[in-house]
Amino acid sequence: MVNSPRPMRRPHGRSERLREQVHRAVVDLLAERGPDELTIPLVAERSGVHQATLYRRWGKIAALLQDMVQAGPARTSALPDTGTLRGDLEAYAVGVAGSLAGPLGVLMLRAAVDAIPATADRGPSTVLAERRVQLGEMLGRARDRGESPPAVADLLEVVVAPLYFRALFDRPASAQDARQLVDRLLGDYSSPR
Amino acid sequence: MVNSPRPMRRPHGRSERLREQVHRAVVDLLAERGPDELTIPLVAERSGVHQATLYRRWGKIAALLQDMVQAGPARTSALPDTGTLRGDLEAYAVGVAGSLAGPLGVLMLRAAVDAIPATADRGPSTVLAERRVQLGEMLGRARDRGESPPAVADLLEVVVAPLYFRALFDRPASAQDARQLVDRLLGDYSSPR
Repeated sequence: MVNSPRPMRRPHGRSERLREQVHRAVVDLLAERGPDELTIPLVAERSGVHQATLYRRWGKIAALLQDMVQAGPARTSALPDTGTLRGDLEAYAVGVAGSLAGPLGVLMLRAAVDAIPATADRGPSTVLAERRVQLGEMLGRARDRGESPPAVADLLEVVVAPLYFRALFDRPASAQDARQLVDRLLGDYSSPR
Repeated sequence: MVNSPRPMRRPHGRSERLREQVHRAVVDLLAERGPDELTIPLVAERSGVHQATLYRRWGKIAALLQDMVQAGPARTSALPDTGTLRGDLEAYAVGVAGSLAGPLGVLMLRAAVDAIPATADRGPSTVLAERRVQLGEMLGRARDRGESPPAVADLLEVVVAPLYFRALFDRPASAQDARQLVDRLLGDYSSPR
């Protein structure tokens, strides 16, 4: 028994609902202020969750932010469902660009980098695992409508990777930049030649 | 006079040569060991520079690594000049992939992320500024040979951004992955349709 792996903790019931409620409050607060101004009392006030509960569960703001980053974008923002492939891709890309321009995006980048071990044999990060599944569902809806969606991997490489690269090494991408990346992706996959 | 900007410090003479000599020693040592095992005495031994000089200039290993990261990839690895556009792009892409799989690449990612201010109105990072100039020169050589090179911005978006994205959120890209990204770039720009 000692070496058997612990089962992955799944979202469930009241505890998970409270977690999402607190995460949403932090997303809202981050949109209004920098991460340095976040405090447990402020999160308590906004979320309607008792300070004592917050201190018991996360101890301090840094641990709460780390928990949100671990939950990944799959938990902190829903994917669009506009009824067309281009509409979904543009709304998604513009959302990623906007998130990377704000404080939660920077925290997520920082956490992703901190999670990389400085060794040669590192495995894939789990931060985007759930998001990949959601993206597959979004593209599956397009296929069901008779459209020709790209693969998730191509969406990540052609659209999402440049958005992250810009956030790292340039000004964050604008909504227009994000839509141009979608043009590039759809030009490769679904426009007539 | 008080408000006139200080001139940018340019590489010059003995001091800059010593800096490059020390940086090269650190690159070699990082290829052999993790960053946690680096010490000033070890760098002194490998570089042939006196410990006292290293302590006076950088104080500690963390400051030396930060200095290397600030110098950016433009200083720590030269660009290829193979005689063909595809050869140069493949050698460059494979080099970036290899570097991101190793400890210096992780340190560079970390430094790039740490340099992002958590505010809305952030400007472009300078880490890649010198590299962009070098890449422009590499692509200029292709144009001089009569080839049709892509723009630097497209090289960064189509090839380099996915390499960074993989290093952040997946296993680091292999040499073969890197070459496939070059195929995608050249398919867009110079192969016959």
